Amino acid sequence: MKKSPMFGKLTVLGTGLLGASLMQAAKARGLCQQALAWSRRPETRLKCEQQSWCDGVYPTASEAVADADLVVLAVPVINIVPLLEEIAPALKAGALVTDVGSTKSLICRHGNAAMPERATFVGSHPMAGSEKAGLEFASETLFEKRACFVTPLVDTPAPAVEKILRFWRELGMEVATTTPETHDEIVAHISHLPHILASVLCETLAAKDPAWRNYAGNGLRDTTRIAAGDPHLWKAILLENREEILRAMAGFEEHWQQMRAAVANNDPFAIVNLLEKGKAYRDAVRND
Amino acid sequence: MKKSPMFGKLTVLGTGLLGASLMQAAKARGLCQQALAWSRRPETRLKCEQQSWCDGVYPTASEAVADADLVVLAVPVINIVPLLEEIAPALKAGALVTDVGSTKSLICRHGNAAMPERATFVGSHPMAGSEKAGLEFASETLFEKRACFVTPLVDTPAPAVEKILRFWRELGMEVATTTPETHDEIVAHISHLPHILASVLCETLAAKDPAWRNYAGNGLRDTTRIAAGDPHLWKAILLENREEILRAMAGFEEHWQQMRAAVANNDPFAIVNLLEKGKAYRDAVRND
Repeated sequence: MKKSPMFGKLTVLGTGLLGASLMQAAKARGLCQQALAWSRRPETRLKCEQQSWCDGVYPTASEAVADADLVVLAVPVINIVPLLEEIAPALKAGALVTDVGSTKSLICRHGNAAMPERATFVGSHPMAGSEKAGLEFASETLFEKRACFVTPLVDTPAPAVEKILRFWRELGMEVATTTPETHDEIVAHISHLPHILASVLCETLAAKDPAWRNYAGNGLRDTTRIAAGDPHLWKAILLENREEILRAMAGFEEHWQQMRAAVANNDPFAIVNLLEKGKAYRDAVRND
Repeated sequence: MKKSPMFGKLTVLGTGLLGASLMQAAKARGLCQQALAWSRRPETRLKCEQQSWCDGVYPTASEAVADADLVVLAVPVINIVPLLEEIAPALKAGALVTDVGSTKSLICRHGNAAMPERATFVGSHPMAGSEKAGLEFASETLFEKRACFVTPLVDTPAPAVEKILRFWRELGMEVATTTPETHDEIVAHISHLPHILASVLCETLAAKDPAWRNYAGNGLRDTTRIAAGDPHLWKAILLENREEILRAMAGFEEHWQQMRAAVANNDPFAIVNLLEKGKAYRDAVRND
């Protein structure tokens, strides 16, 4: 007997890398009967329409969500709240709404407030992605074995949270539930701070002789890869999570000063001690 | 007609990842008739002896180099100069000596001084490697398509330099000639600074909740990978190239302050501008 899908209609708003991969993965794993979409740009809508995993594309977000059981907003963080407000009147009774935004406090607070009685918003942050953007790079395996945060508020109904948790799990993700605030503190450290470091390193190297990049080893390539991410997308993330990021930057500065002092003081014991702490942490990060 | 090998006997001192890969690659590409080795630890010598690409292992470095046409020192940077001094009396007439050390100024100055009239030292730095250490991870393709610096002094005989350049090229490397000082400035920026950043980021995260690493995405994994490198090896590199590294760290701090000010000031234009500079640099780094 074939398992019946979790959702009848899934609507994804925004069909970039994440949105398109989500439609593809949900269809491949039979999580919805139909995967519907809206995208801001007409040319993206046209491209999406031609995909085998897309069952319909609408010219407006409200039309796209009208009959949806699950709506996923996969647009840049600054567009999430306005888009939630736009689609709210069009949501059907019992609709579940989530997002894939990299920051959660503001989105969850406003998202919850924007919902009509008959629908529920639960914030999500699937930590899948790539420095490559766009539907062209979509992959149905993008979510597999990646971490996903689900960030309900205290008054979010438990069955809605459960359903969202199950949805991401069925996509192969390893799901964690936190408050939106804890989420923002965590990602400020493990995602936004690394992004800033990669970018500032590249800015530093660009200001020296850019031809040196021809000598780049694997180390530099890996360390800087995420600096290739979309500047506008990341600008919005940095501003939206500004306070947590400034705290994470201050934490980094403290440790940076220790290392600089150890090198400046020609202190082999202090240097080894710091490098060993770094290695111990990194050795315990899983590599898959 | 079979091409005759560049060297009769190649002796590699130190059979860690780099040294062992070098023997393997040189044999595979027919660059030497015999690949001989010495290693400090008896158990490593035993392991090396059992490899198909190894034609002989000696209990002392001087015995290993006695009849060698090319000697490559593949030991940690702090051991290179003492080892050069140790083997100098044992070198045969016409012997070429090079190394694989990550810093060049001190090594080349002392290396040159340590050589007897009948032998020539030319510094090298093949930018191949891995955070994994040891003969077990050796690979004959380790050097392919990687950058390699060759750093002769002004009075190094041109034919010796040419032969060393050709040796690395035959291993598939992309070779660049610079002064030892320019080399050290370049690698302080493109290799040592990234290593410090990865390590300090890990130290920062270790001081917060280490369990957060379970949420690590590809971004964090890539950005921190090199922090898993051997702390003692890297301590020696940081101290040996201390002045250039402190200059590179100061350069990084300048750009870091700009980014922090842009975030603190809530300035979207400044943030995008900085991220775009970083992205432009990274987009031009080759990804192979």
